[in-house]
Amino acid sequence: MAETIPHWLTKQADVVPNKLALELSDGTVYTFRELKEKSQSFARKLKQLGVDKGSHIGILSANHADMVIAIHAVSYIGAVAVLLNTRLTKQERTFQINDADVSVVIGQSGFRHADDDLHTFADVWNLPEPPATLQTELNLDDAFTIMYTSGTTGFPKGVVHTYGNHWWSAIGSVLNLGLNDSDKWLAVLPLFHVSGLSILLRSVIYGMSVYLLESYERQTVHTAIMERHVTIASVVTVMLKDLVEYLGEPRYPETFRCMLLGGGPAPKSLLEQAKSLRIPVFQSYGLTETASQIVTLRPADALEKLGSSGKPLVPAQLTIAEKDDGVGDIFVKGPMVTGGYYHNAEATESAFRDGWFATGDLGYTDADGFLYVSDRRKDLIISGGENIYPTEIENVLSAMEAIDEAGVVGKDDDTWGQIPVAFVVVNDPSVTAEIILEFVSRYLARYKQPRDIRFIDKLPRNASNKLMRHQLLT
Amino acid sequence: MAETIPHWLTKQADVVPNKLALELSDGTVYTFRELKEKSQSFARKLKQLGVDKGSHIGILSANHADMVIAIHAVSYIGAVAVLLNTRLTKQERTFQINDADVSVVIGQSGFRHADDDLHTFADVWNLPEPPATLQTELNLDDAFTIMYTSGTTGFPKGVVHTYGNHWWSAIGSVLNLGLNDSDKWLAVLPLFHVSGLSILLRSVIYGMSVYLLESYERQTVHTAIMERHVTIASVVTVMLKDLVEYLGEPRYPETFRCMLLGGGPAPKSLLEQAKSLRIPVFQSYGLTETASQIVTLRPADALEKLGSSGKPLVPAQLTIAEKDDGVGDIFVKGPMVTGGYYHNAEATESAFRDGWFATGDLGYTDADGFLYVSDRRKDLIISGGENIYPTEIENVLSAMEAIDEAGVVGKDDDTWGQIPVAFVVVNDPSVTAEIILEFVSRYLARYKQPRDIRFIDKLPRNASNKLMRHQLLT
Repeated sequence: MAETIPHWLTKQADVVPNKLALELSDGTVYTFRELKEKSQSFARKLKQLGVDKGSHIGILSANHADMVIAIHAVSYIGAVAVLLNTRLTKQERTFQINDADVSVVIGQSGFRHADDDLHTFADVWNLPEPPATLQTELNLDDAFTIMYTSGTTGFPKGVVHTYGNHWWSAIGSVLNLGLNDSDKWLAVLPLFHVSGLSILLRSVIYGMSVYLLESYERQTVHTAIMERHVTIASVVTVMLKDLVEYLGEPRYPETFRCMLLGGGPAPKSLLEQAKSLRIPVFQSYGLTETASQIVTLRPADALEKLGSSGKPLVPAQLTIAEKDDGVGDIFVKGPMVTGGYYHNAEATESAFRDGWFATGDLGYTDADGFLYVSDRRKDLIISGGENIYPTEIENVLSAMEAIDEAGVVGKDDDTWGQIPVAFVVVNDPSVTAEIILEFVSRYLARYKQPRDIRFIDKLPRNASNKLMRHQLLT
Repeated sequence: MAETIPHWLTKQADVVPNKLALELSDGTVYTFRELKEKSQSFARKLKQLGVDKGSHIGILSANHADMVIAIHAVSYIGAVAVLLNTRLTKQERTFQINDADVSVVIGQSGFRHADDDLHTFADVWNLPEPPATLQTELNLDDAFTIMYTSGTTGFPKGVVHTYGNHWWSAIGSVLNLGLNDSDKWLAVLPLFHVSGLSILLRSVIYGMSVYLLESYERQTVHTAIMERHVTIASVVTVMLKDLVEYLGEPRYPETFRCMLLGGGPAPKSLLEQAKSLRIPVFQSYGLTETASQIVTLRPADALEKLGSSGKPLVPAQLTIAEKDDGVGDIFVKGPMVTGGYYHNAEATESAFRDGWFATGDLGYTDADGFLYVSDRRKDLIISGGENIYPTEIENVLSAMEAIDEAGVVGKDDDTWGQIPVAFVVVNDPSVTAEIILEFVSRYLARYKQPRDIRFIDKLPRNASNKLMRHQLLT
């Protein structure tokens, strides 16, 4: 049955009107009532741009109060927010905007140069605000957001999340982490990623405060945890590493109860270091397709199962299609898992088997059923929490006339976890690494650009001519 | 979309196998793993009685570990549990068993005399246990329980709850009350009522301990709160009154964080008394049809809004169809509300208007949106937490040849809140109160039997001949 619930922000504005919904590092705060009023006002103004129920609206912004308001405004209209990664090149972004049938793009003024059709948040605020009908309820089967994720092959795919996917994700999390009236969740991960967005949605589903930072900066995050009564923070490995280094002797306050760690495997040494500093790290595993964490290690098990991602959240299930030695493909299932990719039946179909979603990642479960992720999606490179697919970079490299073939692989890096390195076979000896990098920079976001170009005679391939990327660095 | 989740008890047995699921006053405990194993074993044995997916199985028991196990066993089979009030007469119970198409009745041996077809729990445990397929998932759209409730007119109706109704009720509660790892909920209300059953289901949905008592006894409940680390208790007004009286000087421990009060309006004097003793009373409002509380007063508002039932839980909505002076019919909506009554399309249809459920109760909301219930369902008598419908008693009385007509009304009572009093017009002067009470006792549960029979010449009726019950006691 398609369940309908009252609009979550309106509900919190009713139940806890004066509680802080959003707190910014510059001291600006919004209560739930204020956030509702701003979001409804923004929604009425957005309608002036022709955005209506079912419209797809692109949002191009770094973390900012206006971005939060814009996202909630989209839900009041019943439109669909297509969340655009600010680091993409114009070419990458244009692909997503076209693929997702986006009719209007709004965002921060700083990105105006990047996209001439962008309506800035200020533009929208300046619009008139005639009365308009807004959603008072949310149908959990309705689409709410689209976020792009690349795959091992082909173009990026738009992951569609319904209100229900986000709702169930938030509920799965609360049944694992618990909930206190005083909880305040630190959002430093980008809101255009599901890891950041999910914090915003937990806020309006739980009636919980969020401390929002524009970007990661060690001193600001440290201060937030030490002094601003943050109780939970979501981070990726590269941040945890930096914070641990910065923390030194002092301890985080007792009230800081969860450092939710996502975005790829963490080195055991880092986890041990965090443990010795009594940082309550909860390892987790999730994908854009699972609307954030779907497997999380509970505090009670954290010490004994160091290195594990834990067990699937209450509404979720996990199975391993065993290959050898217990390691196999990780499949997940649950009402937080996306129904599929936007206008891409083929990709959707190949991602599901009997209702189970094929993550593409490899892992195993121990005798007690705890998940250990051995490898993120085949050849996936995770650099500072961002996913990089070698195929995407190889496709760009191979498009250069001077390059016959290319292979990209992740190289371990102390700071970023991994960085992409490209191996190329060229047909023109005059081509240099600089020329190649200049070419690549036109098509790929900075974080995807190879940090090193290595010239070789031949790529390692197996009998069926498949590129053996893992042999490139050996 | 019909959501499917892993079986909730299996899930907790996986995630927190060694945590206490159930604790009894005699010191017996069951971990989640043990409770799962016992319930699965009981399920396989039950199948020997012909109980299978879709079967309707009656459960006739006071609070007992076997009753908990039986209820979970029913969910492993995919059958439907028809929960029978142990206080009913054989005649009342037989009506429910027939109306609900019950094929097998199980229960405590103490009730064997009441129903010759009863299979005792011991009988079931003694059955062989061949391997059997059990449910590993729960489809939230599937029916799980049926409980009978009377109405203002006609026969009792079987309220059907799906797994989803119970799930959403538990989630609405957790988003209001929060959740800690150390939570332990006291279940002293009967499990055959939704107020008791819902505690069991929260237990397996949250992975939370339950302290189960067979029945209310002030010393035992007092000790549970003082010494057994209970953090939340569900009580009805008559119990709260008794506990407050018993408590005297000492204070409940700081860790006791919620006394969830349901089952009818509480006198303001009692709430004030509880407040002065720093008992964290949360007033609530709910019906069998709403799968327990649907409106609850948050702790933060408890002091300022004394006497209010609060605001609807996060997934729920409330509206008042105003009559006069702001008071009107209370309507509610949300995914915890029953889809309707078993095999009773007429009653179901008349209970809903545009998706809103007509509670039949009267109330109003103040300027801040807080609900105040003025009157429970028209003429409903609530005695010690049990609902009594005057019509049901009047129908029995009128069936006596010597009685021409009868009117029943609730009279305020210090101990029980209210007690039923009958006014009768007789055609035979030789009939006595004793004779009438003897007759009534054959058809009505003890708690429904009038405590007083008053003989009058004529019942007060309005112009359209409608009985004006509220004038009976004046």
